[in-house]
Amino acid sequence: MIEDKNQSRTSLEQLGEFGLIEHLTKNFDIKHKSTVKSIGDDAAVLDHKSKQIVVTTDLLVENVHFDLSYVPLKHLGYKAVVVNLSDVYAMNAEATQITVSIAVSNRFPLEALEELYAGIETAAKIYNIDVIGGDTTSSTTGLIISVTAIGEVNKKDVVYRSGAKPNDLLVVTGDIGAAYMGLQVLEREKEVFKVNPQNQPDLDPYTYIIERQLKPEARKDIVALLKQLEVKPTAMIDISDGLSSEAIHLCKQSDVGVEIYENKIPLDPQVISTCEEFNIDSTTIALNGGEDYELLMTISQQDFPKIKGNPNLTVIGYMTEKERGMHLITRGEQVVPIIAKGWNAMKNEA
Amino acid sequence: MIEDKNQSRTSLEQLGEFGLIEHLTKNFDIKHKSTVKSIGDDAAVLDHKSKQIVVTTDLLVENVHFDLSYVPLKHLGYKAVVVNLSDVYAMNAEATQITVSIAVSNRFPLEALEELYAGIETAAKIYNIDVIGGDTTSSTTGLIISVTAIGEVNKKDVVYRSGAKPNDLLVVTGDIGAAYMGLQVLEREKEVFKVNPQNQPDLDPYTYIIERQLKPEARKDIVALLKQLEVKPTAMIDISDGLSSEAIHLCKQSDVGVEIYENKIPLDPQVISTCEEFNIDSTTIALNGGEDYELLMTISQQDFPKIKGNPNLTVIGYMTEKERGMHLITRGEQVVPIIAKGWNAMKNEA
Repeated sequence: MIEDKNQSRTSLEQLGEFGLIEHLTKNFDIKHKSTVKSIGDDAAVLDHKSKQIVVTTDLLVENVHFDLSYVPLKHLGYKAVVVNLSDVYAMNAEATQITVSIAVSNRFPLEALEELYAGIETAAKIYNIDVIGGDTTSSTTGLIISVTAIGEVNKKDVVYRSGAKPNDLLVVTGDIGAAYMGLQVLEREKEVFKVNPQNQPDLDPYTYIIERQLKPEARKDIVALLKQLEVKPTAMIDISDGLSSEAIHLCKQSDVGVEIYENKIPLDPQVISTCEEFNIDSTTIALNGGEDYELLMTISQQDFPKIKGNPNLTVIGYMTEKERGMHLITRGEQVVPIIAKGWNAMKNEA
Repeated sequence: MIEDKNQSRTSLEQLGEFGLIEHLTKNFDIKHKSTVKSIGDDAAVLDHKSKQIVVTTDLLVENVHFDLSYVPLKHLGYKAVVVNLSDVYAMNAEATQITVSIAVSNRFPLEALEELYAGIETAAKIYNIDVIGGDTTSSTTGLIISVTAIGEVNKKDVVYRSGAKPNDLLVVTGDIGAAYMGLQVLEREKEVFKVNPQNQPDLDPYTYIIERQLKPEARKDIVALLKQLEVKPTAMIDISDGLSSEAIHLCKQSDVGVEIYENKIPLDPQVISTCEEFNIDSTTIALNGGEDYELLMTISQQDFPKIKGNPNLTVIGYMTEKERGMHLITRGEQVVPIIAKGWNAMKNEA
């Protein structure tokens, strides 16, 4: 997209830093009363009254977290916001504000940043959040995006990773493994494209998994659903690094063990068929794939009737005494220890 | 420092992302009641009760904002925190929490990051703030640091850029121009070092200005002083881009003009002597140098008796009706328009 010579190109130097922020954020409207002062002063001013606030931050680096050869900038802007909101929802909080900082090399024309911010704006609209600040600077190489998200929550509603108890049910939202398989398809097509740029790939069989990779959604709806069902999870985490890695976090921080049933893990049919095509075990992908941005929670068994049959919530196991350890019960009823093989940004350096 | 082959080197890959954050932040203690939950969950949880909070963020990029050939990593960590706190103080708020994210290439051993975090920890101690979160990832090239700072303030005490009125006095804290001249000396010594690595520079005549560049301080003390003096500025901004640039911000956002008196601008003797040595006009440096992290404020004339004679506060001019424009009155009583030539990260790409 940014290589298209027919598009008009405005260099970033023409605008300068202040002009750039003003230009990119001029359409952003303020939706929350808690946003007292947004972009334009030394700091934003917020007033969440009697609520507690939650704060989370993520840094996305070109060629570590994303590859612009197949990630459209608009999707990237959207995803950069969503991955942070996911952490807010994992606290059972409502996301209200974000700051967005970018460092960008001069190889990006203004129009590319406009695309990126269009994605940020779309996410802000859909998730009902205010963009309250940020920083824009140059980088000597690629694109770096830093997002900090802020949410609000009543003190009694906040859910930590540390509250799971033995016998609590382990519940996952949606389905998992799709984002990772979407990435595998995109990487394969990139290699094909290098060899034969004329090749027109047929991506129809992969639409769901590619969308899960390029344009994930955060489970704002689940926070609302839990409130409606009157279920407060005992612990919760979002699935960014993979089911096994997140389950281990819950166990370690709650001082419990876990048994996960392989046959309960929710997989989309496209994940299963693509795993077959790539000759990969789908359970391995579900456990270790990452970037699902689903929520993994534990709930008291007493709450089971409230969630039973809800298509958004799947019970995949239960928590045990710590001494029992952390295990996967396979379809063949084998007991396999769960170990973290989650995506590690420190080991993925290009 | 990081080139020293005799130091032990631990590769970042050995620790991985989770191990790295835990390792780097394990000594960080929590000082504020408002920090309900710090590092270790999906998000930090804060409770500032009835106070408003302020939020500000900055992104520092290697070879754009800092040059590791002469900036020690410990100082860099310290400075990365301080520049953000400066924005919090510019709102007349108390800084309480920060998040710190870093992207770093594998050329940095663990020991280098420990140095960086030692500087962050020192700043957190001195400024009494909690480090509540962050993200650690790899970069394909240099070091990137993203800091978000949070502060709290009583609703009635918050000071914006927009409240200045005609006839208000323009007041600056400390002295200005030193950080920029410190940078000039460091850049010159770097060039000398390239030609003759054996050369031992005598930096004694430049200790103050080099410290202002490498290890600036934010004016937390001024927020306390103003409270003690019972002075609430009508507008305030911190000086990061240069006096002229910040004065223009105050004027534009307050819809007023300004007259600044050249002979009132506070300069350290080292700035004056170094400017003479470099054959640069010291007023130009004071107006456009930047990175001073002093506070520039406007106060009502009624408050003048309260600040009179205070060595921390210098009246350098006064605000006018907008139509009068923005001017510097030179020592020769010439009236010169003030224009922004502040440091522009978008134009400084290496």
